[in-house]
Amino acid sequence: MSWVPVDAESHFPIQNLPYGVFRRGNDAPHIGVAIGEHVLDLNVLSARGFFQTPEIADAFQQTTLNKFMGLGRPFWTEARAVITELLKESTATIRDDAKVREEALVPMSECAMQLPAEIGDYTDFYAGRHHATNVGIMFRGANNALQPNWLHLPVGYHGRASSVVVSGTDIVRPMGQVCANQQDPHPAFQPCAVLDFELELAVFVGPGNKMGERIKVEDAKNHIFGMALMNDWSARDIQKWEYVPLGPFNAKNFATSISPWIVTLDALEAFREQLPPQEPAVLPYLQDPEYGSYNINLEVALNTANNTHTVISRSNGKYLYWTFAQQLAHHTSTGCPMRPGDLLGSGTISGPDDASMGSLLEITWSGSKVITLADGSERKFLRDGDEVVMTGYCQGEGYRIGFGCVRGKILPAVQN
Amino acid sequence: MSWVPVDAESHFPIQNLPYGVFRRGNDAPHIGVAIGEHVLDLNVLSARGFFQTPEIADAFQQTTLNKFMGLGRPFWTEARAVITELLKESTATIRDDAKVREEALVPMSECAMQLPAEIGDYTDFYAGRHHATNVGIMFRGANNALQPNWLHLPVGYHGRASSVVVSGTDIVRPMGQVCANQQDPHPAFQPCAVLDFELELAVFVGPGNKMGERIKVEDAKNHIFGMALMNDWSARDIQKWEYVPLGPFNAKNFATSISPWIVTLDALEAFREQLPPQEPAVLPYLQDPEYGSYNINLEVALNTANNTHTVISRSNGKYLYWTFAQQLAHHTSTGCPMRPGDLLGSGTISGPDDASMGSLLEITWSGSKVITLADGSERKFLRDGDEVVMTGYCQGEGYRIGFGCVRGKILPAVQN
Ligand SMILES: [Ca+2]
Ligand SMILES: [Ca+2]
Ligand SMILES: [Mg+2]
Ligand SMILES: [Mg+2]
Ligand code: NI
Repeated sequence: MSWVPVDAESHFPIQNLPYGVFRRGNDAPHIGVAIGEHVLDLNVLSARGFFQTPEIADAFQQTTLNKFMGLGRPFWTEARAVITELLKESTATIRDDAKVREEALVPMSECAMQLPAEIGDYTDFYAGRHHATNVGIMFRGANNALQPNWLHLPVGYHGRASSVVVSGTDIVRPMGQVCANQQDPHPAFQPCAVLDFELELAVFVGPGNKMGERIKVEDAKNHIFGMALMNDWSARDIQKWEYVPLGPFNAKNFATSISPWIVTLDALEAFREQLPPQEPAVLPYLQDPEYGSYNINLEVALNTANNTHTVISRSNGKYLYWTFAQQLAHHTSTGCPMRPGDLLGSGTISGPDDASMGSLLEITWSGSKVITLADGSERKFLRDGDEVVMTGYCQGEGYRIGFGCVRGKILPAVQN
Repeated sequence: MSWVPVDAESHFPIQNLPYGVFRRGNDAPHIGVAIGEHVLDLNVLSARGFFQTPEIADAFQQTTLNKFMGLGRPFWTEARAVITELLKESTATIRDDAKVREEALVPMSECAMQLPAEIGDYTDFYAGRHHATNVGIMFRGANNALQPNWLHLPVGYHGRASSVVVSGTDIVRPMGQVCANQQDPHPAFQPCAVLDFELELAVFVGPGNKMGERIKVEDAKNHIFGMALMNDWSARDIQKWEYVPLGPFNAKNFATSISPWIVTLDALEAFREQLPPQEPAVLPYLQDPEYGSYNINLEVALNTANNTHTVISRSNGKYLYWTFAQQLAHHTSTGCPMRPGDLLGSGTISGPDDASMGSLLEITWSGSKVITLADGSERKFLRDGDEVVMTGYCQGEGYRIGFGCVRGKILPAVQN
């Protein structure tokens, strides 16, 4: 327990301590950890000499987490130990020092959260089996749902780093080229009419690898800093026309939203669960000695312009077939260099049934069904003014390791 | 003419003045322009007060070109005018000042060229019609060579920025997952056996756009800083197995090489040529009022480990169907933000006949033919020790606007 008050349902107890970057007014961005409804300002603590290891002290005075991410696991472990000690109930150092407390413990309501890192490269995988199967059934029928490669490698594509934004950033509905009849194409340029979200988890890379070298699957954990929630906004009508043969491009590059707090693997460790072995067996370079998943309760809600709130999906982190360790090992198997702050998205996380699907494409089965919201209105895909809110947490005994949320509201397309 | 000696066949006469970043010994990287066999050090000139506009003076003291790229066309025009004036035969300022000359005019042989910019995002298009047709014929037959979308939009995909390297960087043959029979898949993880190059041009973006806004095709020129040669190394066997349905990923992300000198659109302007109108007509947002191409002679040579040199292709910049202005307008049509230093590759530039194909995939028609090199050895795809050298220039009357070259040598795969 911490001397900072934390509710039982709070996402940010002392067991969590996720990292983020925030601004107060016009101050420069500071690095902090979330604790209850406060943020502990690590820049302030660092300046006051609370971190004796110079690399950590220096990293916490940066305006992004890249440098801290690049330090590696021994430094992460040490920093976590120092912060845990300072926050625990019995430690008087800050608890009883009104001046330091005043300076370093900032109400979350005063913090404008920033993107936690400069993202050099962003990759999105397709690692959820139910999702890949659902999409496959819709597009190719039940007999060919999974492509032949899907069970053998974590399929992924390079995304657009410049449009990764932090939770709360409004999303302008994209314009794009769409085509109703591809056999006799007369495409049009118009506002996306089939705008969707994708419920995903994402990890930030820690220390990278040199070009030409690889990160081995058994070592991948030491290269993964932590995890966030991600909404991979998707323009289905644009995607359908453009994606052959080089994959999704404009359908994805207008925006990807992430939650501001990065939950460390240390905090998640208690919620790791084994998965049944992969079948068929994967190649040795992909065999993860800790093959498993995290039991993270995920939820998607839709807020309408008239302030109604409807939960439209409940899924779980355990529905990923390919682990982030496997994704990282595969991605670097060619010698592709990673850099601290690089972002890997999991792909859409859908569960086994209708109530746990991670995209409107699946929930409305490509628009063949409608969902009814709390205000009685219906949706196949997103309307202007809709806000998508994704949340996630692991339930421990009497505490939660939470991710906070990632939210984004749709603004009308800019047509001219 | 310049007071600096320049051969008639030099790529770098006073009409060119391409920008690059170089290092001398252990000095910090400096920005320079190429002139004959020298580099004019703009950092030194800036420190000595030769650039009176503070934004330009500051930009030239950076270690990358990003800041200068972000200033925009009026500043580029001014800087070019100042440099041209300083270098022309009749200007005594530097010509007759031994001390400044000694400091600012560096023999190219002493310069280690660097990546000219930090590349935030890298995108590769597929804008060459002959190339897209050749690939289509090989994979789908002559009747369905071009996909239905190809004539309606510039197809592209997001690439990996972290593995874009400057000419001269060795390329480690990638390991990867390949599969001989996709109907009954038993994939293997092994060194790429079908390693290829792709002859491309690429532009660096200047001033970007805010997320949610667009760059219009008629304004695109003001957002393009200049052009380089690019070799998009490609692992065809990896690509064949992985690319469905999200496009090429590991087949491309191990390396992309670019030439170190960025030739400005001002220098290229005299070599722009009109193209016949696009048919079918493209949508208004893609109608380029200056639809055309650059007449750039392109050449690919293969140097073997035993020092033989064989030219294996001669192509031309005019074989692009989609202009970079169209690519930029399409890319940002969703509101996708560009940042100064972003890189757009053209896609492989193949000409209409066998002697002008821009990849070994096409030259050997997917390995069904061999080419014979100057040393009598044969190739279908690249061997360890092979060096690929691409060059390009525009031929003016008595001068050349050249790109120098982009070269890269294949090192053996690292298997463990
Ligand atoms: Ca996705
Ligand atoms: Ca290419
Ligand atoms: Mg996205
Ligand atoms: Mg490449
Ligand atoms: Ni079999």
